[in-house]
Amino acid sequence: MDFQTWVGARLSLVEATLRKVLPAPDIAPQRLHQAMRYAVLNGGKRVRPLLAFAAGELAGADAERVAFAAAAVELIHAYSLVHDDLPCMDDDVLRRGKPTCHVEYDEPTALLVGDALQSLAFQLVSEYRLAGDAETQLDMIRLLAAAAGSRGMAGGQAIDLAAVGEALTVPELEFMHIHKTGALIRAATLLGARCGNSLGEADFGQLDQYAKAVGLAFQVVDDVLDAESSTAALGKTAGKDAQHSKPTYVSVLGVARSKEFAAELRQKALDAVAGFGERAARLKQLADFIVLRKF
Amino acid sequence: MDFQTWVGARLSLVEATLRKVLPAPDIAPQRLHQAMRYAVLNGGKRVRPLLAFAAGELAGADAERVAFAAAAVELIHAYSLVHDDLPCMDDDVLRRGKPTCHVEYDEPTALLVGDALQSLAFQLVSEYRLAGDAETQLDMIRLLAAAAGSRGMAGGQAIDLAAVGEALTVPELEFMHIHKTGALIRAATLLGARCGNSLGEADFGQLDQYAKAVGLAFQVVDDVLDAESSTAALGKTAGKDAQHSKPTYVSVLGVARSKEFAAELRQKALDAVAGFGERAARLKQLADFIVLRKF
Repeated sequence: MDFQTWVGARLSLVEATLRKVLPAPDIAPQRLHQAMRYAVLNGGKRVRPLLAFAAGELAGADAERVAFAAAAVELIHAYSLVHDDLPCMDDDVLRRGKPTCHVEYDEPTALLVGDALQSLAFQLVSEYRLAGDAETQLDMIRLLAAAAGSRGMAGGQAIDLAAVGEALTVPELEFMHIHKTGALIRAATLLGARCGNSLGEADFGQLDQYAKAVGLAFQVVDDVLDAESSTAALGKTAGKDAQHSKPTYVSVLGVARSKEFAAELRQKALDAVAGFGERAARLKQLADFIVLRKF
Repeated sequence: MDFQTWVGARLSLVEATLRKVLPAPDIAPQRLHQAMRYAVLNGGKRVRPLLAFAAGELAGADAERVAFAAAAVELIHAYSLVHDDLPCMDDDVLRRGKPTCHVEYDEPTALLVGDALQSLAFQLVSEYRLAGDAETQLDMIRLLAAAAGSRGMAGGQAIDLAAVGEALTVPELEFMHIHKTGALIRAATLLGARCGNSLGEADFGQLDQYAKAVGLAFQVVDDVLDAESSTAALGKTAGKDAQHSKPTYVSVLGVARSKEFAAELRQKALDAVAGFGERAARLKQLADFIVLRKF
Protein backbone atom coordinates (compact mmCIF):
# COMPACT_ATOMS: atom_id res chain seq x y z
CA MET A 1 0.00 0.00 0.00
CA ASP A 2 1.55 3.36 -0.94
CA PHE A 3 1.76 6.09 1.69
CA GLN A 4 -1.15 8.16 0.39
CA THR A 5 -3.47 5.14 0.31
CA TRP A 6 -2.39 4.16 3.82
CA VAL A 7 -2.98 7.71 5.06
CA GLY A 8 -6.41 7.78 3.42
CA ALA A 9 -7.43 4.46 4.98
CA ARG A 10 -6.24 5.44 8.46
CA LEU A 11 -7.86 8.87 8.25
CA SER A 12 -11.16 7.22 7.31
CA LEU A 13 -10.86 4.92 10.28
CA VAL A 14 -10.12 7.66 12.81
CA GLU A 15 -12.86 9.90 11.39
CA ALA A 16 -15.37 7.08 11.66
CA THR A 17 -14.24 6.44 15.24
CA LEU A 18 -14.56 10.12 16.16
CA ARG A 19 -18.04 10.30 14.59
CA LYS A 20 -19.06 7.25 16.54
CA VAL A 21 -17.74 8.28 19.95
CA LEU A 22 -18.85 11.91 19.85
CA PRO A 23 -22.42 12.11 21.20
CA ALA A 24 -24.97 12.53 18.40
CA PRO A 25 -26.14 16.10 17.74
CA ASP A 26 -29.72 15.26 18.78
CA ILE A 27 -28.75 14.03 22.25
CA ALA A 28 -29.27 16.58 25.06
CA PRO A 29 -27.63 19.00 25.61
CA GLN A 30 -27.89 19.32 21.83
CA ARG A 31 -26.09 22.61 21.34
CA LEU A 32 -23.08 21.41 23.32
CA HIS A 33 -22.94 18.16 21.37
CA GLN A 34 -23.27 20.01 18.07
CA ALA A 35 -20.45 22.33 19.08
CA MET A 36 -18.27 19.39 20.15
CA ARG A 37 -18.74 17.79 16.74
CA TYR A 38 -18.06 21.12 15.03
CA ALA A 39 -14.78 21.45 16.92
CA VAL A 40 -13.55 17.94 16.15
CA LEU A 41 -15.00 16.93 12.77
CA ASN A 42 -13.44 19.75 10.81
CA GLY A 43 -10.82 18.29 8.55
CA GLY A 44 -7.81 18.53 10.82
CA LYS A 45 -4.54 17.04 9.58
CA ARG A 46 -4.78 14.27 12.22
CA VAL A 47 -1.01 14.05 12.53
CA ARG A 48 -1.25 12.56 16.03
CA PRO A 49 -3.63 9.76 15.01
CA LEU A 50 -1.38 8.94 12.04
CA LEU A 51 1.60 8.66 14.37
CA ALA A 52 -0.41 6.35 16.62
CA PHE A 53 -1.28 4.11 13.66
CA ALA A 54 2.31 4.08 12.40
CA ALA A 55 3.66 3.17 15.83
CA GLY A 56 0.89 0.59 16.16
CA GLU A 57 2.12 -1.07 12.95
CA LEU A 58 5.60 -1.25 14.41
CA ALA A 59 4.19 -3.20 17.35
CA GLY A 60 1.82 -5.34 15.30
CA ALA A 61 -1.26 -3.67 16.80
CA ASP A 62 -4.76 -4.08 15.45
CA ALA A 63 -5.69 -0.84 13.65
CA GLU A 64 -9.26 -0.93 15.03
CA ARG A 65 -7.85 -0.91 18.53
CA VAL A 66 -5.34 1.83 17.77
CA ALA A 67 -8.22 3.91 16.37
CA PHE A 68 -9.66 4.44 19.87
CA ALA A 69 -6.31 5.53 21.30
CA ALA A 70 -5.77 7.76 18.26
CA ALA A 71 -9.23 9.29 18.60
CA ALA A 72 -8.66 9.97 22.32
CA VAL A 73 -5.42 11.82 21.60
CA GLU A 74 -7.15 13.80 18.85
CA LEU A 75 -9.96 14.77 21.25
CA ILE A 76 -7.34 16.14 23.67
CA HIS A 77 -5.72 18.03 20.80
CA ALA A 78 -9.07 19.39 19.62
CA TYR A 79 -9.99 20.57 23.12
CA SER A 80 -6.67 22.39 23.40
CA LEU A 81 -7.29 24.21 20.12
CA VAL A 82 -10.78 25.31 21.20
CA HIS A 83 -9.44 26.71 24.47
CA ASP A 84 -6.38 28.20 22.75
CA ASP A 85 -8.56 30.16 20.36
CA LEU A 86 -10.65 31.76 23.16
CA PRO A 87 -10.52 35.55 23.53
CA CYS A 88 -8.56 35.32 26.80
CA MET A 89 -5.90 33.19 25.07
CA ASP A 90 -4.96 33.71 21.39
CA ASP A 91 -8.29 35.34 20.53
CA ASP A 92 -8.38 33.71 17.11
CA VAL A 93 -11.36 33.70 14.77
CA LEU A 94 -10.22 31.18 12.15
CA ARG A 95 -9.30 27.51 12.53
CA ARG A 96 -8.99 25.00 9.72
CA GLY A 97 -10.61 27.52 7.38
CA LYS A 98 -13.75 27.95 9.48
CA PRO A 99 -14.85 30.25 12.31
CA THR A 100 -13.42 29.10 15.62
CA CYS A 101 -15.77 27.39 18.05
CA HIS A 102 -16.49 30.45 20.20
CA VAL A 103 -17.19 32.52 17.08
CA GLU A 104 -19.53 29.93 15.56
CA TYR A 105 -21.24 29.22 18.91
CA ASP A 106 -20.33 31.41 21.88
CA GLU A 107 -17.61 31.70 24.47
CA PRO A 108 -19.19 29.75 27.36
CA THR A 109 -20.13 26.96 24.97
CA ALA A 110 -16.58 26.80 23.63
CA LEU A 111 -15.24 26.61 27.18
CA LEU A 112 -17.55 23.67 27.93
CA VAL A 113 -16.74 22.04 24.58
CA GLY A 114 -13.08 21.91 25.53
CA ASP A 115 -13.85 20.63 29.01
CA ALA A 116 -16.19 17.93 27.74
CA LEU A 117 -13.82 16.83 24.95
CA GLN A 118 -11.13 16.21 27.52
CA SER A 119 -13.51 14.09 29.62
CA LEU A 120 -14.58 12.20 26.51
CA ALA A 121 -10.97 11.35 25.69
CA PHE A 122 -10.56 9.66 29.06
CA GLN A 123 -13.90 7.95 28.69
CA LEU A 124 -12.69 6.44 25.42
CA VAL A 125 -9.43 5.09 26.76
CA SER A 126 -11.18 3.50 29.74
CA GLU A 127 -14.29 2.21 27.93
CA TYR A 128 -12.75 0.42 24.96
CA ARG A 129 -10.22 -2.35 25.10
CA LEU A 130 -6.92 -0.87 23.95
CA ALA A 131 -4.28 -3.21 25.27
CA GLY A 132 -3.71 -6.90 25.85
CA ASP A 133 -4.26 -6.49 29.59
CA ALA A 134 -5.95 -3.97 31.87
CA GLU A 135 -2.71 -3.06 33.69
CA THR A 136 -1.14 -1.90 30.43
CA GLN A 137 -4.26 0.08 29.65
CA LEU A 138 -4.12 1.86 33.04
CA ASP A 139 -0.53 2.75 32.26
CA MET A 140 -1.62 4.15 28.88
CA ILE A 141 -4.25 6.33 30.57
CA ARG A 142 -1.63 7.61 32.99
CA LEU A 143 0.64 8.47 30.05
CA LEU A 144 -2.14 10.36 28.27
CA ALA A 145 -3.16 12.26 31.41
CA ALA A 146 0.43 13.26 32.16
CA ALA A 147 0.95 14.38 28.56
CA ALA A 148 -2.18 16.55 28.69
CA GLY A 149 -1.61 18.07 32.12
CA SER A 150 0.41 20.78 33.81
CA ARG A 151 3.72 19.04 33.17
CA GLY A 152 2.74 18.37 29.57
CA MET A 153 0.51 20.23 27.12
CA ALA A 154 -1.35 22.54 29.53
CA GLY A 155 1.96 23.42 31.16
CA GLY A 156 3.37 24.23 27.73
CA GLN A 157 0.52 26.64 27.18
CA ALA A 158 1.32 28.35 30.47
CA ILE A 159 4.99 28.66 29.49
CA ASP A 160 3.88 30.02 26.12
CA LEU A 161 1.72 32.68 27.82
CA ALA A 162 4.59 33.75 30.04
CA ALA A 163 6.94 33.94 27.04
CA VAL A 164 4.97 36.56 25.09
CA GLY A 165 7.25 39.53 24.51
CA GLU A 166 10.25 37.71 26.02
CA ALA A 167 13.52 36.96 24.25
CA LEU A 168 13.94 33.23 24.80
CA THR A 169 17.09 31.21 24.27
CA VAL A 170 16.96 28.11 22.09
CA PRO A 171 16.91 25.78 25.14
CA GLU A 172 14.04 27.78 26.66
CA LEU A 173 12.13 27.63 23.40
CA GLU A 174 12.74 23.89 23.21
CA PHE A 175 11.53 23.43 26.81
CA MET A 176 8.32 25.26 25.90
CA HIS A 177 7.63 23.20 22.80
CA ILE A 178 8.53 19.86 24.36
CA HIS A 179 5.59 20.57 26.63
CA LYS A 180 3.20 22.45 24.37
CA THR A 181 3.17 20.19 21.33
CA GLY A 182 5.82 17.56 22.01
CA ALA A 183 4.13 15.84 24.94
CA LEU A 184 0.94 14.96 23.10
CA ILE A 185 2.73 13.92 19.91
CA ARG A 186 4.91 11.66 22.01
CA ALA A 187 1.86 10.27 23.80
CA ALA A 188 0.14 9.53 20.48
CA THR A 189 3.16 7.58 19.26
CA LEU A 190 3.75 5.63 22.46
CA LEU A 191 0.04 4.86 22.95
CA GLY A 192 -0.17 3.52 19.41
CA ALA A 193 2.71 1.16 20.09
CA ARG A 194 1.28 0.02 23.42
CA CYS A 195 -1.89 -1.13 21.67
CA GLY A 196 0.26 -3.88 20.18
CA ASN A 197 2.86 -6.37 21.38
CA SER A 198 5.29 -5.19 24.01
CA LEU A 199 8.36 -3.72 22.29
CA GLY A 200 10.81 -4.25 25.11
CA GLU A 201 12.59 -1.43 26.87
CA ALA A 202 15.34 -0.73 24.35
CA ASP A 203 13.03 -0.65 21.32
CA PHE A 204 10.47 1.43 23.21
CA GLY A 205 13.29 3.86 24.03
CA GLN A 206 14.17 4.13 20.32
CA LEU A 207 10.54 4.84 19.49
CA ASP A 208 10.49 7.48 22.22
CA GLN A 209 13.55 9.14 20.64
CA TYR A 210 11.73 9.16 17.31
CA ALA A 211 8.60 10.67 18.90
CA LYS A 212 10.52 13.43 20.64
CA ALA A 213 12.40 14.39 17.47
CA VAL A 214 9.24 14.36 15.35
CA GLY A 215 7.34 16.37 17.97
CA LEU A 216 9.92 19.12 17.99
CA ALA A 217 10.27 19.04 14.19
CA PHE A 218 6.52 19.50 13.92
CA GLN A 219 6.71 22.71 15.92
CA VAL A 220 9.74 24.10 14.08
CA VAL A 221 7.94 23.53 10.77
CA ASP A 222 4.80 25.13 12.24
CA ASP A 223 6.78 28.24 13.09
CA VAL A 224 8.28 28.41 9.61
CA LEU A 225 4.86 27.96 7.99
CA ASP A 226 3.33 30.63 10.24
CA ALA A 227 5.99 33.07 9.06
CA GLU A 228 6.04 32.11 5.37
CA SER A 229 2.57 30.95 4.38
CA SER A 230 -0.71 32.68 3.71
CA THR A 231 -3.82 32.43 5.87
CA ALA A 232 -5.60 30.75 2.95
CA ALA A 233 -2.98 28.01 2.67
CA LEU A 234 -2.89 27.36 6.43
CA GLY A 235 -6.63 27.58 7.12
CA LYS A 236 -5.73 29.55 10.23
CA THR A 237 -4.51 33.10 10.71
CA ALA A 238 -0.95 33.30 9.39
CA GLY A 239 1.71 35.56 10.87
CA LYS A 240 0.05 35.58 14.26
CA ASP A 241 3.20 34.59 16.15
CA ALA A 242 4.93 37.81 15.14
CA GLN A 243 1.72 39.77 15.68
CA HIS A 244 1.44 38.43 19.25
CA SER A 245 5.20 38.92 19.88
CA LYS A 246 5.58 35.21 20.51
CA PRO A 247 9.08 33.83 20.49
CA THR A 248 9.37 31.15 17.79
CA TYR A 249 12.14 29.22 16.10
CA VAL A 250 11.90 31.75 13.28
CA SER A 251 12.24 34.73 15.62
CA VAL A 252 15.12 33.14 17.50
CA LEU A 253 17.01 31.27 14.74
CA GLY A 254 15.72 32.89 11.55
CA VAL A 255 13.96 31.05 8.70
CA ALA A 256 17.04 29.48 7.09
CA ARG A 257 18.48 28.03 10.30
CA SER A 258 15.01 26.87 11.39
CA LYS A 259 14.67 24.89 8.17
CA GLU A 260 18.07 23.32 8.73
CA PHE A 261 17.08 22.45 12.29
CA ALA A 262 13.88 20.77 11.06
CA ALA A 263 15.94 18.71 8.61
CA GLU A 264 18.33 17.69 11.42
CA LEU A 265 15.41 16.60 13.60
CA ARG A 266 13.98 14.60 10.72
CA GLN A 267 17.29 12.79 10.37
CA LYS A 268 17.37 12.16 14.10
CA ALA A 269 13.89 10.65 13.93
CA LEU A 270 14.83 8.43 10.97
CA ASP A 271 18.02 7.27 12.70
CA ALA A 272 16.11 6.39 15.87
CA VAL A 273 13.91 3.88 14.05
CA ALA A 274 16.43 2.72 11.43
CA GLY A 275 17.04 -0.53 13.31
CA PHE A 276 13.39 -1.58 12.92
CA GLY A 277 13.70 -1.92 9.14
CA GLU A 278 10.46 -2.31 7.20
CA ARG A 279 8.30 -2.37 10.34
CA ALA A 280 9.06 1.33 10.75
CA ALA A 281 8.25 2.22 7.14
CA ARG A 282 5.17 4.26 8.07
CA LEU A 283 7.01 6.04 10.87
CA LYS A 284 9.72 7.07 8.42
CA GLN A 285 7.20 8.26 5.84
CA LEU A 286 5.41 10.29 8.53
CA ALA A 287 8.63 11.97 9.62
CA ASP A 288 9.07 13.07 6.01
CA PHE A 289 5.46 14.16 5.77
CA ILE A 290 5.68 16.25 8.95
CA VAL A 291 8.85 18.05 7.91
CA LEU A 292 8.03 18.54 4.24
CA ARG A 293 4.35 19.55 4.65
CA LYS A 294 3.17 22.89 3.29
CA PHE A 295 0.22 23.51 5.64
CA MET B 1 -15.67 7.70 66.64
CA ASP B 2 -18.26 10.47 66.62
CA PHE B 3 -19.23 12.08 63.31
CA GLN B 4 -17.22 15.28 63.78
CA THR B 5 -14.07 13.33 64.65
CA TRP B 6 -14.58 11.07 61.64
CA VAL B 7 -15.10 14.09 59.36
CA GLY B 8 -11.96 15.73 60.75
CA ALA B 9 -9.86 12.61 60.19
CA ARG B 10 -11.12 12.09 56.65
CA LEU B 11 -10.70 15.77 55.74
CA SER B 12 -7.09 15.60 56.95
CA LEU B 13 -6.50 12.56 54.81
CA VAL B 14 -7.95 14.06 51.63
CA GLU B 15 -6.16 17.38 52.19
CA ALA B 16 -2.86 15.54 52.63
CA THR B 17 -3.55 13.56 49.46
CA LEU B 18 -4.38 16.69 47.48
CA ARG B 19 -1.23 18.44 48.74
CA LYS B 20 0.81 15.43 47.72
CA VAL B 21 -0.58 14.94 44.24
CA LEU B 22 -0.71 18.60 43.20
CA PRO B 23 2.67 19.53 41.69
CA ALA B 24 4.81 21.54 44.10
CA PRO B 25 4.74 25.34 43.64
CA ASP B 26 8.42 25.42 42.70
CA ILE B 27 8.07 22.98 39.80
CA ALA B 28 7.88 24.62 36.34
CA PRO B 29 5.59 26.11 35.22
CA GLN B 30 5.55 27.59 38.71
CA ARG B 31 2.76 30.11 38.29
CA LEU B 32 0.39 27.49 36.92
CA HIS B 33 1.22 25.09 39.73
CA GLN B 34 0.77 27.83 42.32
CA ALA B 35 -2.60 28.71 40.82
CA MET B 36 -3.67 25.05 40.77
CA ARG B 37 -2.88 24.75 44.47
CA TYR B 38 -4.67 28.04 45.15
CA ALA B 39 -7.79 26.74 43.42
CA VAL B 40 -7.85 23.41 45.24
CA LEU B 41 -6.32 23.95 48.69
CA ASN B 42 -8.79 26.59 49.81
CA GLY B 43 -10.93 25.08 52.52
CA GLY B 44 -13.73 23.66 50.43
CA LYS B 45 -16.40 21.63 52.22
CA ARG B 46 -15.14 18.42 50.53
CA VAL B 47 -18.62 16.93 50.46
CA ARG B 48 -17.73 14.65 47.56
CA PRO B 49 -14.64 13.19 49.24
CA LEU B 50 -16.65 12.61 52.43
CA LEU B 51 -19.27 10.72 50.43
CA ALA B 52 -16.52 8.62 48.87
CA PHE B 53 -15.11 7.76 52.29
CA ALA B 54 -18.55 6.95 53.71
CA ALA B 55 -19.38 4.68 50.76
CA GLY B 56 -15.92 3.16 51.08
CA GLU B 57 -16.69 2.20 54.67
CA LEU B 58 -19.87 0.50 53.51
CA ALA B 59 -17.74 -1.67 51.20
CA GLY B 60 -14.91 -2.23 53.66
CA ALA B 61 -12.47 -0.19 51.59
CA ASP B 62 -9.11 0.97 52.85
CA ALA B 63 -9.35 4.73 53.53
CA GLU B 64 -5.89 5.39 52.08
CA ARG B 65 -7.05 3.91 48.81
CA VAL B 66 -10.35 5.80 48.84
CA ALA B 67 -8.36 9.00 49.42
CA PHE B 68 -7.01 8.91 45.85
CA ALA B 69 -10.45 8.40 44.34
CA ALA B 70 -11.83 11.12 46.62
CA ALA B 71 -9.04 13.51 45.66
CA ALA B 72 -9.61 12.85 41.95
CA VAL B 73 -13.30 13.69 42.26
CA GLU B 74 -12.45 16.83 44.21
CA LEU B 75 -9.98 17.89 41.48
CA ILE B 76 -12.76 17.58 38.91
CA HIS B 77 -15.07 19.59 41.17
CA ALA B 78 -12.39 22.26 41.75
CA TYR B 79 -11.72 22.58 38.00
CA SER B 80 -15.44 23.07 37.35
CA LEU B 81 -15.60 25.87 39.93
CA VAL B 82 -12.61 27.66 38.40
CA HIS B 83 -14.16 27.53 34.92
CA ASP B 84 -17.62 28.40 36.30
CA ASP B 85 -16.31 31.57 37.89
CA LEU B 86 -14.71 32.84 34.66
CA PRO B 87 -16.03 36.10 33.19
CA CYS B 88 -17.64 34.31 30.23
CA MET B 89 -19.58 32.05 32.65
CA ASP B 90 -20.80 33.30 36.05
CA ASP B 91 -18.21 36.08 36.24
CA ASP B 92 -17.78 35.67 39.96
CA VAL B 93 -15.07 37.30 42.07
CA LEU B 94 -15.47 35.45 45.36
CA ARG B 95 -15.11 31.75 46.14
CA ARG B 96 -14.76 30.21 49.58
CA GLY B 97 -14.16 33.69 50.99
CA LYS B 98 -11.22 34.46 48.69
CA PRO B 99 -10.78 36.05 45.24
CA THR B 100 -11.61 33.57 42.50
CA CYS B 101 -8.70 32.07 40.56
CA HIS B 102 -8.92 34.42 37.56
CA VAL B 103 -9.07 37.43 39.91
CA GLU B 104 -6.10 36.28 42.00
CA TYR B 105 -4.09 35.22 38.93
CA ASP B 106 -5.49 36.02 35.48
CA GLU B 107 -8.03 34.64 33.06
CA PRO B 108 -5.77 32.56 30.81
CA THR B 109 -4.09 31.04 33.86
CA ALA B 110 -7.48 30.15 35.36
CA LEU B 111 -8.50 28.51 32.10
CA LEU B 112 -5.34 26.38 32.14
CA VAL B 113 -5.73 25.63 35.84
CA GLY B 114 -9.11 24.06 35.14
CA ASP B 115 -7.80 22.14 32.16
CA ALA B 116 -4.78 20.84 34.06
CA LEU B 117 -6.79 19.90 37.16
CA GLN B 118 -9.02 17.73 35.00
CA SER B 119 -5.98 15.97 33.53
CA LEU B 120 -4.51 15.52 36.99
CA ALA B 121 -7.70 13.85 38.20
CA PHE B 122 -7.37 11.20 35.50
CA GLN B 123 -3.68 10.84 36.19
CA LEU B 124 -4.49 10.04 39.82
CA VAL B 125 -7.07 7.39 39.09
CA SER B 126 -4.75 5.66 36.63
CA GLU B 127 -1.49 6.02 38.57
CA TYR B 128 -2.50 4.79 42.03
CA ARG B 129 -4.02 1.44 42.82
CA LEU B 130 -7.68 2.06 43.65
CA ALA B 131 -9.36 -1.29 43.22
CA GLY B 132 -8.67 -4.96 43.76
CA ASP B 133 -8.10 -5.51 40.06
CA ALA B 134 -7.21 -3.37 37.06
CA GLU B 135 -10.47 -4.14 35.22
CA THR B 136 -12.50 -2.63 38.07
CA GLN B 137 -10.22 0.38 38.06
CA LEU B 138 -10.75 0.92 34.33
CA ASP B 139 -14.47 0.80 34.98
CA MET B 140 -14.07 3.40 37.74
CA ILE B 141 -12.20 5.71 35.36
CA ARG B 142 -14.97 5.32 32.81
CA LEU B 143 -17.54 6.23 35.47
CA LEU B 144 -15.60 9.34 36.47
CA ALA B 145 -15.10 10.45 32.87
CA ALA B 146 -18.78 9.99 32.04
CA ALA B 147 -19.81 11.89 35.18
CA ALA B 148 -17.54 14.80 34.25
CA GLY B 149 -18.41 14.98 30.57
CA SER B 150 -21.09 16.29 28.25
CA ARG B 151 -23.69 13.84 29.53
CA GLY B 152 -22.72 14.61 33.11
CA MET B 153 -21.36 17.72 34.80
CA ALA B 154 -20.21 19.69 31.74
CA GLY B 155 -23.55 18.92 30.09
CA GLY B 156 -25.32 20.22 33.19
CA GLN B 157 -23.41 23.46 32.86
CA ALA B 158 -24.56 23.77 29.26
CA ILE B 159 -28.19 23.15 30.28
CA ASP B 160 -27.74 25.73 33.04
CA LEU B 161 -26.47 28.31 30.53
CA ALA B 162 -29.42 27.69 28.24
CA ALA B 163 -31.85 27.99 31.16
CA VAL B 164 -30.93 31.56 32.15
CA GLY B 165 -34.09 33.66 31.95
CA GLU B 166 -36.24 30.60 31.15
CA ALA B 167 -39.19 29.40 33.23
CA LEU B 168 -38.35 25.76 33.83
CA THR B 169 -40.70 23.07 35.08
CA VAL B 170 -39.69 20.97 38.07
CA PRO B 171 -38.74 17.98 35.86
CA GLU B 172 -36.59 20.27 33.67
CA LEU B 173 -34.90 21.70 36.73
CA GLU B 174 -34.28 18.21 38.03
CA PHE B 175 -32.81 17.14 34.69
CA MET B 176 -30.41 20.09 34.86
CA HIS B 177 -29.24 19.35 38.39
CA ILE B 178 -28.95 15.60 37.93
CA HIS B 179 -26.28 16.54 35.42
CA LYS B 180 -24.73 19.65 36.90
CA THR B 181 -24.13 18.52 40.48
CA GLY B 182 -25.75 15.09 40.74
CA ALA B 183 -23.46 13.25 38.35
CA LEU B 184 -20.24 14.01 40.21
CA ILE B 185 -21.76 13.44 43.66
CA ARG B 186 -23.01 10.09 42.42
CA ALA B 187 -19.56 9.30 40.97
CA ALA B 188 -17.88 10.16 44.28
CA THR B 189 -20.16 7.79 46.17
CA LEU B 190 -19.92 4.92 43.70
CA LEU B 191 -16.15 5.26 43.29
CA GLY B 192 -15.69 5.16 47.06
CA ALA B 193 -17.63 1.91 47.23
CA ARG B 194 -15.74 0.38 44.32
CA CYS B 195 -12.46 0.87 46.17
CA GLY B 196 -13.69 -1.88 48.50
CA ASN B 197 -15.28 -5.30 48.21
CA SER B 198 -17.82 -5.79 45.48
CA LEU B 199 -21.28 -4.94 46.85
CA GLY B 200 -23.30 -7.06 44.45
CA GLU B 201 -25.80 -5.61 42.03
CA ALA B 202 -28.76 -5.13 44.40
CA ASP B 203 -26.74 -3.41 47.13
CA PHE B 204 -24.91 -1.27 44.59
CA GLY B 205 -28.32 -0.24 43.24
CA GLN B 206 -29.42 0.84 46.74
CA LEU B 207 -26.25 2.88 47.12
CA ASP B 208 -26.92 4.46 43.74
CA GLN B 209 -30.43 5.44 44.92
CA TYR B 210 -28.87 7.03 47.99
CA ALA B 211 -26.32 8.92 45.88
CA LYS B 212 -28.95 10.27 43.50
CA ALA B 213 -31.20 11.47 46.34
CA VAL B 214 -28.31 13.09 48.20
CA GLY B 215 -27.01 14.71 45.03
CA LEU B 216 -30.35 16.36 44.31
CA ALA B 217 -30.84 17.30 47.98
CA PHE B 218 -27.44 19.00 47.93
CA GLN B 219 -28.56 21.23 45.06
CA VAL B 220 -31.96 22.05 46.57
CA VAL B 221 -30.25 23.09 49.80
CA ASP B 222 -27.71 25.10 47.79
CA ASP B 223 -30.55 27.00 46.13
CA VAL B 224 -32.19 27.71 49.50
CA LEU B 225 -28.90 28.89 51.00
CA ASP B 226 -28.21 31.12 48.00
CA ALA B 227 -31.57 32.80 48.54
CA GLU B 228 -31.49 33.01 52.34
CA SER B 229 -27.87 33.38 53.45
CA SER B 230 -25.36 36.20 53.43
CA THR B 231 -22.25 36.33 51.28
CA ALA B 232 -20.16 36.23 54.46
CA ALA B 233 -21.77 33.02 55.66
CA LEU B 234 -21.47 31.30 52.28
CA GLY B 235 -17.97 32.49 51.39
CA LYS B 236 -19.28 33.07 47.87
CA THR B 237 -21.57 35.70 46.42
CA ALA B 238 -25.07 35.14 47.80
CA GLY B 239 -28.23 35.90 45.86
CA LYS B 240 -26.49 35.43 42.53
CA ASP B 241 -29.05 32.98 41.17
CA ALA B 242 -31.78 35.62 41.28
CA GLN B 243 -29.36 38.27 40.02
CA HIS B 244 -28.48 36.09 37.01
CA SER B 245 -32.16 35.14 36.44
CA LYS B 246 -31.28 31.49 36.95
CA PRO B 247 -34.16 29.14 37.55
CA THR B 248 -33.70 27.41 40.93
CA TYR B 249 -35.78 25.28 43.24
CA VAL B 250 -36.52 28.45 45.18
CA SER B 251 -37.68 30.36 42.10
CA VAL B 252 -39.81 27.43 40.90
CA LEU B 253 -41.10 25.97 44.19
CA GLY B 254 -40.58 28.77 46.70
CA VAL B 255 -38.45 28.50 49.86
CA ALA B 256 -40.93 26.59 52.03
CA ARG B 257 -41.66 23.88 49.46
CA SER B 258 -37.96 23.62 48.59
CA LYS B 259 -37.16 22.90 52.22
CA GLU B 260 -39.85 20.23 52.33
CA PHE B 261 -38.46 18.73 49.13
CA ALA B 262 -34.96 18.59 50.64
CA ALA B 263 -36.37 16.82 53.69
CA GLU B 264 -38.15 14.29 51.43
CA LEU B 265 -34.94 13.63 49.53
CA ARG B 266 -33.07 13.13 52.80
CA GLN B 267 -35.63 10.53 53.84
CA LYS B 268 -35.33 8.85 50.46
CA ALA B 269 -31.57 8.65 50.91
CA LEU B 270 -31.89 7.23 54.42
CA ASP B 271 -34.44 4.65 53.27
CA ALA B 272 -32.19 3.54 50.41
CA VAL B 273 -29.39 2.51 52.77
CA ALA B 274 -31.53 1.43 55.75
CA GLY B 275 -30.96 -2.24 54.93
CA PHE B 276 -27.18 -1.90 55.42
CA GLY B 277 -27.56 -1.20 59.15
CA GLU B 278 -24.49 0.09 60.96
CA ARG B 279 -22.26 -0.20 57.88
CA ALA B 280 -24.16 2.77 56.44
CA ALA B 281 -23.85 4.91 59.59
CA ARG B 282 -21.55 7.46 57.95
CA LEU B 283 -23.73 7.64 54.84
CA LYS B 284 -26.76 8.43 57.01
CA GLN B 285 -24.87 11.06 58.98
CA LEU B 286 -23.68 12.66 55.74
CA ALA B 287 -27.23 12.81 54.36
CA ASP B 288 -28.18 14.73 57.51
CA PHE B 289 -25.13 16.96 57.23
CA ILE B 290 -25.85 17.81 53.59
CA VAL B 291 -29.49 18.70 54.19
CA LEU B 292 -29.04 20.50 57.52
CA ARG B 293 -25.88 22.48 56.67
CA LYS B 294 -25.90 26.27 56.91
CA PHE B 295 -23.17 27.06 54.36
